[in-house]
Amino acid sequence: MEKYNLMNDYSEGCHHSILELLAETNDNQQDGYGEDIYSQQAKKLIKKEIKNPKAEIYFVTGGTQANLIVISAMLKPHESVISAETGHINIHEAGAIEATGHKINPIYNNDGKVKTQDIQNILDEHITVPHMVKPKMVYISNSTEIGTVYKKNELEKLSEFCKKNNLYLFLDGARLGSALASTENDLTLADVSKLTDVFYIGGTKNGALLGEAIVINNKKLQEDFPFQLKQKGALMSKGRLLGVQFMALFSNNLFFDLAKHANFMAKQISDAIKQKGYSFLIESPSNQIFPIFPNILISKLDEKFGFYIWKKIDAENSAVRIVTSWATNQKIVNEFISCIEL
Amino acid sequence: MEKYNLMNDYSEGCHHSILELLAETNDNQQDGYGEDIYSQQAKKLIKKEIKNPKAEIYFVTGGTQANLIVISAMLKPHESVISAETGHINIHEAGAIEATGHKINPIYNNDGKVKTQDIQNILDEHITVPHMVKPKMVYISNSTEIGTVYKKNELEKLSEFCKKNNLYLFLDGARLGSALASTENDLTLADVSKLTDVFYIGGTKNGALLGEAIVINNKKLQEDFPFQLKQKGALMSKGRLLGVQFMALFSNNLFFDLAKHANFMAKQISDAIKQKGYSFLIESPSNQIFPIFPNILISKLDEKFGFYIWKKIDAENSAVRIVTSWATNQKIVNEFISCIEL
Amino acid sequence: MEKYNLMNDYSEGCHHSILELLAETNDNQQDGYGEDIYSQQAKKLIKKEIKNPKAEIYFVTGGTQANLIVISAMLKPHESVISAETGHINIHEAGAIEATGHKINPIYNNDGKVKTQDIQNILDEHITVPHMVKPKMVYISNSTEIGTVYKKNELEKLSEFCKKNNLYLFLDGARLGSALASTENDLTLADVSKLTDVFYIGGTKNGALLGEAIVINNKKLQEDFPFQLKQKGALMSKGRLLGVQFMALFSNNLFFDLAKHANFMAKQISDAIKQKGYSFLIESPSNQIFPIFPNILISKLDEKFGFYIWKKIDAENSAVRIVTSWATNQKIVNEFISCIEL
Amino acid sequence: MEKYNLMNDYSEGCHHSILELLAETNDNQQDGYGEDIYSQQAKKLIKKEIKNPKAEIYFVTGGTQANLIVISAMLKPHESVISAETGHINIHEAGAIEATGHKINPIYNNDGKVKTQDIQNILDEHITVPHMVKPKMVYISNSTEIGTVYKKNELEKLSEFCKKNNLYLFLDGARLGSALASTENDLTLADVSKLTDVFYIGGTKNGALLGEAIVINNKKLQEDFPFQLKQKGALMSKGRLLGVQFMALFSNNLFFDLAKHANFMAKQISDAIKQKGYSFLIESPSNQIFPIFPNILISKLDEKFGFYIWKKIDAENSAVRIVTSWATNQKIVNEFISCIEL
Repeated sequence: MEKYNLMNDYSEGCHHSILELLAETNDNQQDGYGEDIYSQQAKKLIKKEIKNPKAEIYFVTGGTQANLIVISAMLKPHESVISAETGHINIHEAGAIEATGHKINPIYNNDGKVKTQDIQNILDEHITVPHMVKPKMVYISNSTEIGTVYKKNELEKLSEFCKKNNLYLFLDGARLGSALASTENDLTLADVSKLTDVFYIGGTKNGALLGEAIVINNKKLQEDFPFQLKQKGALMSKGRLLGVQFMALFSNNLFFDLAKHANFMAKQISDAIKQKGYSFLIESPSNQIFPIFPNILISKLDEKFGFYIWKKIDAENSAVRIVTSWATNQKIVNEFISCIEL
Repeated sequence: MEKYNLMNDYSEGCHHSILELLAETNDNQQDGYGEDIYSQQAKKLIKKEIKNPKAEIYFVTGGTQANLIVISAMLKPHESVISAETGHINIHEAGAIEATGHKINPIYNNDGKVKTQDIQNILDEHITVPHMVKPKMVYISNSTEIGTVYKKNELEKLSEFCKKNNLYLFLDGARLGSALASTENDLTLADVSKLTDVFYIGGTKNGALLGEAIVINNKKLQEDFPFQLKQKGALMSKGRLLGVQFMALFSNNLFFDLAKHANFMAKQISDAIKQKGYSFLIESPSNQIFPIFPNILISKLDEKFGFYIWKKIDAENSAVRIVTSWATNQKIVNEFISCIEL
Repeated sequence: MEKYNLMNDYSEGCHHSILELLAETNDNQQDGYGEDIYSQQAKKLIKKEIKNPKAEIYFVTGGTQANLIVISAMLKPHESVISAETGHINIHEAGAIEATGHKINPIYNNDGKVKTQDIQNILDEHITVPHMVKPKMVYISNSTEIGTVYKKNELEKLSEFCKKNNLYLFLDGARLGSALASTENDLTLADVSKLTDVFYIGGTKNGALLGEAIVINNKKLQEDFPFQLKQKGALMSKGRLLGVQFMALFSNNLFFDLAKHANFMAKQISDAIKQKGYSFLIESPSNQIFPIFPNILISKLDEKFGFYIWKKIDAENSAVRIVTSWATNQKIVNEFISCIEL
Repeated sequence: MEKYNLMNDYSEGCHHSILELLAETNDNQQDGYGEDIYSQQAKKLIKKEIKNPKAEIYFVTGGTQANLIVISAMLKPHESVISAETGHINIHEAGAIEATGHKINPIYNNDGKVKTQDIQNILDEHITVPHMVKPKMVYISNSTEIGTVYKKNELEKLSEFCKKNNLYLFLDGARLGSALASTENDLTLADVSKLTDVFYIGGTKNGALLGEAIVINNKKLQEDFPFQLKQKGALMSKGRLLGVQFMALFSNNLFFDLAKHANFMAKQISDAIKQKGYSFLIESPSNQIFPIFPNILISKLDEKFGFYIWKKIDAENSAVRIVTSWATNQKIVNEFISCIEL
């Protein structure tokens, strides 16, 4: 691979401290299925961070797996989940949610974020009982699939609205690190835990080899959850692999430092692009940015860097997606910035 | 953990050469979702071993995941899968197969192995079309859940019978290493590939951190398989983690050497038990053995070793399950043997 | 059709009084989806009979439909249903229950009835949490698929056991009329309602064109049930068709009279068979009987009557199944009896 | 019920000739599960009408049931179905399709009809294999849920496009009678059969008590279909009830005459509305019309007639839905017309 890849945040393996802890703990005999001491320790560290000792935490291998298990565990057969049309569950999971039997009610908008009015509209459209599904859960992502982030007051409004309307609020945190490390962010992990029924903390895209930590805040939803993990093929016999990684991520502030690094790399590129007079498809203060470039500049950049062409704007310009990560290095960023010249 | 654990073959992390290869390859940027060069290389190594260049190979994170994806991908809604009653899919997957919509037709027997007559009986019982499910797949495990292994002529008979009756033959190889390394074994990986429609090679219980390699031999079953992986949450963004491990396992004969070690450890214990005059619940020439001990001996062994009490035999005797692994060391085996004394 | 059919209880259309009520009400405009006055009236009549004004009642078109909707509505993804191996849901519904995602735990026995000890055994086998399904419902049929019936004290024991073990008790009443009209019976419809969480009253096999009345006694299970009907294709736009029929069945004791007639026809045949010295596969005091005849007698009977050969007994004898119904006439019964001679 | 109901086409029972044939055939013993001679005869009559002797025909009890069985029988787990957003499967079946595991890809448009460009757009959006579902079927309704009908050249284009793109074409004919009897129509039942892979002919909304006839034209899709009926609770033990009704509908041109009557009633109302200067939400040449009336006129009409307020247009006007049927009588139509005056 000769080009430097800015296509996603999972091009490299994992942060070296994770590898080290894996090596260090490797030979210790442990119980299987998440009963190992590393998983227990990781859960303790996370509970401290979310300030919610009564939460239940489970580690799974990836985001689609987390989404399909949480949603199918919580909904009854006739219940549906509301999501932004751009939501990962709606377009990029090969029908994983529907495969468990549930309809997704899409919300069309521009910034990837769900607003209370959007939810109200869906509820208003679903009054012909029992001929339509019953919306019962709201799914949001933070940061969203297009890099935008929720402000604390936005999440508070959603949380209050969901409680009032007897809806579960589920936050997909595959890129929660980047959201919380955003310059725009005013949320803590404890806020997220307090304001949602269930959410997960993404490890895979923030320095781990694999792993998402599902946090169930709502007591009612905690019952029998391990059965769901097993049934959907998510209960790892060597659960230690996930436990060790989250132990590392939630020690020494690593989780937040890695996210901050990713965002800072994106911010430098973003600032340089602005300075050079280019605009963006959307303002995204996280590790994904969507500048609009002339096609000839895109061709030039394409010689040295890997990235996705996101959307054709007009005959001569396109939006591209650039993703930085915990592993993106400063030298590459400098080089990329220096190439943004026709 | 003070006792030495002989409860299962997933108490430790992974073989050191896997950890080393993970570290060595960690910083290389790779494409996601199994398109990395390590996964490609691992597939090449496996194809060479199975002598089937037209097979398609996919890596997933665990056995239950492999089982539910393979079965749901291959069966139509009204089709069922035949399995030994003791089969992993039938009793130890929390209804994973049924959750994808399919019935399991159980076969009751004593040795965990499926015979053609058992299948014929199931077929004979299912003639009331369309009121009953249509059996369409035979699921077998090698080694079985109780440690027994298939001989080549047994697998050949099953294969021939399935072809003649238009049934798919699917072999769960979570412990295939141990089966092939058994003193009783006369099968090669190439035989297994030739005689089944689909099977998988277990990494998790034979030295990897996690990972099973699904091998699809039947061309008809290969179509669109990656969609199934994605839909069931099994497509890892860092597929490299699985690729690297299978690259290590299928280099330098590691996969077979680790299995041979596990079996050899079990054999020594087994031989000693026989010598001391104790019998077994079943003859199992792999890494799981089921001796019948007096309860007072069990209590004594229990002070130093972890193992499962499998079945009460009579008021004074019980069968226990002892499992060795790639990581079981000789010193422990010696110690265990020396403790088999009242 | 030259032979007289004693193969089942659905060979004719419906009782004439049902046809008459359909004709009489045909031109009245009514609301759709079960909101018609006939359905309301039928529910009232049934509630009076079951002495449970708080029950909720829904009409569906058939038994398999009733079973799959009730079970899928009540169970969470990891929960299973316990059934006799001979249970309709286990063998004669083409995997309908599994298609909604749930495992059936079969009980092997001789008389088609579930006993508390059988259930306890299943519970005892399912303690490896979360690796196995969680049994949560007990499914029984009355009369059973082999014609046996439950006594009041048997149903009381089951009911008590289920309550104590936090299991739902669901009674399939496709042939409930015949059970309650049995000479062995000491249950009333009100008893059945009091002792189960949910059950249904079969119309199709007791004089209706089609229709089963699902009675939900357990308040917790009543919530949102109409969504399940709609989702599974069971909500008839002309629900009046079902309402009118149950209105007729539960007027003038028709439901019970029809069942009594069917049983009486079977009883006469049964008594004659005994008198002539033949035995039975099982004692079944309802409208299905299973005499064991010499094959040469079977051949002779087969010239004039349709029935199933149920099971080979030995080289010279087989058990056959003879089913009578609300429509079986006395002349035919006499003729059949006179033919039981070699 | 004092008001005359123009809310839907299932307010009455069935056409008297159906009731008569039910009575006439009632006492004949017949085989169950659709093997009766009436079902066989009805299939013959339909095959003659569709000019397709190789089609396979199955009768089911309703539209949602037909939709969910056809779609789940034909699609593999990762395949999706394209539908107008207004399609019955998308909004009015309580998630029936998703409950069988499949995603619906909605098309947003104004007239309820699917066009090839809409399908092409969906295909273009689904190129990220295997992260997205694979669209494999196109679902259309004729007449549509808002009363519009397909012209022959429109259906030909759809059919050709689907063949070229390896998509199944499935036509929901719950109101196919009304479509084919429309003044705008230039399709025959034989055309519909020739141009689709599968479709169904609605009986429930065109004079039957219940019943839809599923016609499978594509040979590949015929295999094992009865299992799907059984599994989803659609195989009636007294299949004769459906057979008899379709026998009546397809004798003496009844099916077409009833639809023609319904349309003619709607046409008279529609013409009168136009003449009085009111406009329509959409031009719908079938038995459903959507005039826009002043709210005060709506209040006046509401005193004597039942109908739905469909959509608010502005502060003073709303669109209403008026549905006529095979049973709507001329006197009521005259009265309704005379009431369209402020």
